[in-house]
Amino acid sequence: MITLQDLVVKASQRKGMIVAVAAAADIEVLSAVNSAIEKELASFLLFDDELHLQNLLVNHFPELLNSGKLSIVHTKDTAQAASLAVKAVSNSDANVLMKGNIATATILRAALNSDYGLRTGSVLSHVAAFEVPNYERLLFVTDAAMNIAPDLMTKAQIIRNSVTVANACGIEEPIVAPLAAIETVNPAMEPTTDAASLVAMNNRGQITGCIIDGPLALDNAISVNAAKQKGITTKTAGQADVLMVPNIEAGNILYKSLMYFANAKVGAIIQGAAAPIVLTSRADSAESKLYSLAIGILTVK
Amino acid sequence: MITLQDLVVKASQRKGMIVAVAAAADIEVLSAVNSAIEKELASFLLFDDELHLQNLLVNHFPELLNSGKLSIVHTKDTAQAASLAVKAVSNSDANVLMKGNIATATILRAALNSDYGLRTGSVLSHVAAFEVPNYERLLFVTDAAMNIAPDLMTKAQIIRNSVTVANACGIEEPIVAPLAAIETVNPAMEPTTDAASLVAMNNRGQITGCIIDGPLALDNAISVNAAKQKGITTKTAGQADVLMVPNIEAGNILYKSLMYFANAKVGAIIQGAAAPIVLTSRADSAESKLYSLAIGILTVK
Repeated sequence: MITLQDLVVKASQRKGMIVAVAAAADIEVLSAVNSAIEKELASFLLFDDELHLQNLLVNHFPELLNSGKLSIVHTKDTAQAASLAVKAVSNSDANVLMKGNIATATILRAALNSDYGLRTGSVLSHVAAFEVPNYERLLFVTDAAMNIAPDLMTKAQIIRNSVTVANACGIEEPIVAPLAAIETVNPAMEPTTDAASLVAMNNRGQITGCIIDGPLALDNAISVNAAKQKGITTKTAGQADVLMVPNIEAGNILYKSLMYFANAKVGAIIQGAAAPIVLTSRADSAESKLYSLAIGILTVK
Repeated sequence: MITLQDLVVKASQRKGMIVAVAAAADIEVLSAVNSAIEKELASFLLFDDELHLQNLLVNHFPELLNSGKLSIVHTKDTAQAASLAVKAVSNSDANVLMKGNIATATILRAALNSDYGLRTGSVLSHVAAFEVPNYERLLFVTDAAMNIAPDLMTKAQIIRNSVTVANACGIEEPIVAPLAAIETVNPAMEPTTDAASLVAMNNRGQITGCIIDGPLALDNAISVNAAKQKGITTKTAGQADVLMVPNIEAGNILYKSLMYFANAKVGAIIQGAAAPIVLTSRADSAESKLYSLAIGILTVK
């Protein structure tokens, strides 16, 4: 199987990648930058108060100062750090946007700015790649963080975004399972009718590059035996690469369950803007931030 | 911590319990009955075709025939098996209703029959108790199977039902976490506003016997460290006994994730009728069916 570590190696083979970090003056953020530079993933443009940033680097990561992989751009506050980092990406001075010590809303506001932002007309969605102990496949979960209660056409775009990321990670024609509570169509349960429509959209070429099989409950999506036991006859049941959750609560609960109860590893990006956005949070481990950077770099067009 | 095995032992200490099984002529169902009788949990009334049932017992569980713990009631089809099993419970000839080899809809229809059923005017809801490897507490998840998209008042009743079950399992004043994708109130996310209302209902005595703390994301509900890291100051954050999911998809996905990715053990019942209902399915292990029976027996009034 493809592991998250494989993605780090693969990302290091893409040369010349540059990551713009909004509000980088933070030990944990710089630790992720340091680790990514050690793995030769990318060079970094750091946006923040220059003096503060220099002090942190001198005291904690002196090796970075002479790495030749860092440029610092002085900014006076987080809003400016966000707008200049976004502009660096939209001007093609950087390939990936990364959130530093800044509110998610602040960086997304800049990324969606209609003058200089990274809008493409597409939906922005969160795509996470999980490596679950004792499970045989890298599993992508989408959208656990951006879209609250996506309608059908938003779900279609969420799938397209996830296919782009899965492709970039080396999965050529991912199997996508729109999840529901059951594996049959029940008009009282919109996730089941939406799943049916998404399968039809896949059959009619409205969503391409993947095989969509749903509705499926989680067990039928990830276990061939569970699918057989339920009498599900599609060839792809039980073999999902992408789990498309019907709402943000289901996604967030799945995400946290995999992390806390199944000890999974994860990397994640926001896809759908002109460039991948890495939105790690303070609760993410250094390892997880590195995985997210690797996925972001791989997903650069 | 209280384990599911502890609940089996505790249930065996309740004497004179009788379980009515609708459509019992099935090896897996009888295997669960056999196991429950070995553990001295209950006696059983088995409703099904008598000849078929006798044959299965003679060939597979001959020791059961002379156990003194079985009575067989001949029924001509599953609908009759369901209605007579339900009547046995409503007539107080049995304390717990158990689904055998019969569609869930068939047994629920009988259980909800307005003439002879087990209606109480309350909401019926599914309550599952999970023992998660390396996790410190038995975790109740509700409602992962009955209510599709419960409104606020239904959620209140779902919580009351879960408190009854948690109490029966030995947890005196359970901490209930109404889960959402975030831990703050956001009017665009109904699970967060409902959680706020449920906390207020708890504060004003509209929901009693528990401490409700929400909205919480799953990590903040089950990890004190995660709650602290998010700056959540309530004393009960991170210590939930009951996880109330906002919709059936989130619940089903959490349920399956705990089973498939975290190797959890589970027992579950439907609560809110005049008697506990054990709705095990073919996919459940024998162990899981036994745990469900134990929880059902403990929850008998």
